[in-house]
Amino acid sequence: MRKGSGAVGVRDVAVAAGVSAMTVSRALRGIDGVSEATRQRIASLAAEMGYVPDGTARALAVGETRLIGISVPNLFNDVFADILGGMRRALHLAGHPSIIDTTDYDPSRELDWVERMTVWRPAALVLTGCDHDPGLAPILTRARLPVAEVWDVRTDPIDFCVGVDHLAAGETLGRHALSLGYRAPAFVGPRPGRDRRADQRAEGIAMAFAGIAPLARIVAEEDSAFVAGHRGMAQVLSGEKRDAVFFHNDNTAFGGLMAAEAAGLDVPGDIGVVGFNRLDLTRVLSRPLTTLETPRRQIGQMAAAHLLARLNGVTPPRVTRLECRLIEGGTLRRVAP
Amino acid sequence: MRKGSGAVGVRDVAVAAGVSAMTVSRALRGIDGVSEATRQRIASLAAEMGYVPDGTARALAVGETRLIGISVPNLFNDVFADILGGMRRALHLAGHPSIIDTTDYDPSRELDWVERMTVWRPAALVLTGCDHDPGLAPILTRARLPVAEVWDVRTDPIDFCVGVDHLAAGETLGRHALSLGYRAPAFVGPRPGRDRRADQRAEGIAMAFAGIAPLARIVAEEDSAFVAGHRGMAQVLSGEKRDAVFFHNDNTAFGGLMAAEAAGLDVPGDIGVVGFNRLDLTRVLSRPLTTLETPRRQIGQMAAAHLLARLNGVTPPRVTRLECRLIEGGTLRRVAP
Repeated sequence: MRKGSGAVGVRDVAVAAGVSAMTVSRALRGIDGVSEATRQRIASLAAEMGYVPDGTARALAVGETRLIGISVPNLFNDVFADILGGMRRALHLAGHPSIIDTTDYDPSRELDWVERMTVWRPAALVLTGCDHDPGLAPILTRARLPVAEVWDVRTDPIDFCVGVDHLAAGETLGRHALSLGYRAPAFVGPRPGRDRRADQRAEGIAMAFAGIAPLARIVAEEDSAFVAGHRGMAQVLSGEKRDAVFFHNDNTAFGGLMAAEAAGLDVPGDIGVVGFNRLDLTRVLSRPLTTLETPRRQIGQMAAAHLLARLNGVTPPRVTRLECRLIEGGTLRRVAP
Repeated sequence: MRKGSGAVGVRDVAVAAGVSAMTVSRALRGIDGVSEATRQRIASLAAEMGYVPDGTARALAVGETRLIGISVPNLFNDVFADILGGMRRALHLAGHPSIIDTTDYDPSRELDWVERMTVWRPAALVLTGCDHDPGLAPILTRARLPVAEVWDVRTDPIDFCVGVDHLAAGETLGRHALSLGYRAPAFVGPRPGRDRRADQRAEGIAMAFAGIAPLARIVAEEDSAFVAGHRGMAQVLSGEKRDAVFFHNDNTAFGGLMAAEAAGLDVPGDIGVVGFNRLDLTRVLSRPLTTLETPRRQIGQMAAAHLLARLNGVTPPRVTRLECRLIEGGTLRRVAP
């Protein structure tokens, strides 16, 4: 039932799915006459079994084996735009076109995308972060694809990862505020579980304050980070008194600054504000934001360099952890503890 | 030499290129042994001649004929993120995966991308704006692909377009400032020729002031729109006195506001500031920015709806011009003319 090369064929998928080879063929070609549910089941099964269409036909048809697929949570975010900017330019110069898809932080959408992409036999894939659907790693390992995980780091990447340690990032910011005398911290960000990097940073801040003060966590999710920050700060101000508010990122922090201003409060006189990333916006503020600069373009460039090395038979380091830089800014001050 | 269907085959391309069919095949498959220059020449020629790989092999190989390719200038820009957000969700729900590429406002990169994409035989393409390399329309017409041009409008789209009239947008903003008594306008934006939409808006503003006052055009290009706006405003302030500064977009305008503040000027007391788009940032500012709200998500949604209609045999209107909304805001005031 298998082709000479030992590869999985249409018939293998048909047997596994309990349908005819013709149905598998129609389903995978997107031809009508197969229900959507069946089509999806067959496509999943085909991807799971490592089915790839005949190599020669595929290469001739697609005319492209240098393609690199990149998956990011969304495009609204300057962070991913910076990482992509650094990465795609390097890949492009090396003759690798890349295509992008977005997951909206949904592991099942990321999995769908990987299943679709592997059928196209790209040269490599790039994934954002290190948390994926459990079904994802086996598919990639079976496809023997080089895979870069970027932005986050973990000790056991699928292939290799390039990013920053978000727990340590949170701890750096927390310790800085603590050393200035702040004792009533709050964190404004997405609901726990949505964005593991945000969760890790919140945990890092909490660790810095452990045994001294609890970290209040305020959930603020809006289409716009600015609006989320504004509402998050309003919520902080309506509750028990807090002296320093850590925001999910700089855009959220800017929304918080505007909400404090609207409430007649002075920052840092009445309340401290801390961002994350040092996004472009912070480069023009009259009072610089206290934040942590993340090496986003460098992550993109290094991930590209490692991928290109990998494609040329050189094994890159499995874990590349890049340093962040504390920007002391002017939205925290020394307070009497 | 041609296949039964009248389609262009590998041999036709080989004859035209003066090489063997094997070389064409190797070149299009990205196999080594063909110089990069030759590969590019053959790929261009193949695209130009309308060569597409054998349909059945292609469909079986790619397993995907529902793919929609989308090209945008960049991903750093909230405008394109909004348009894409509105569009991709609708396409996704209709079972059309979409992939994105960026052109960095370079028509030759857009052309390259279209050439690459047409070989993949997507269901449709989406292009940003209506200004393309002259070689682009013939390729798309020959490929008989549905094509949506979004964000800008023109009377003779390749297939159909959905967007706003940027000339009229500029004129609306210019007339508003004029009616308030402003008489010394400046425009801060990219160099003429880089972004036709910006050029059109500048022209619209100039039209509003025609015969009354000339529009000073200040070029400010930086990686960051915020920084560009900051520097642009600094440049305006260092020159002949201006009373109203129109910015390329709201993020640039915010940079300008910060530069005015840094120079000790009050807005709108000492100088007026006008943005464009009503980006998210403006939703949290204490003093609302005078700007024009563009229907970005609606453009994306309508372009998707028209594409889906088109794919189902319904011809959409060739030109769909959506309205913008003036946000009077607080960064212009009534001045004695």
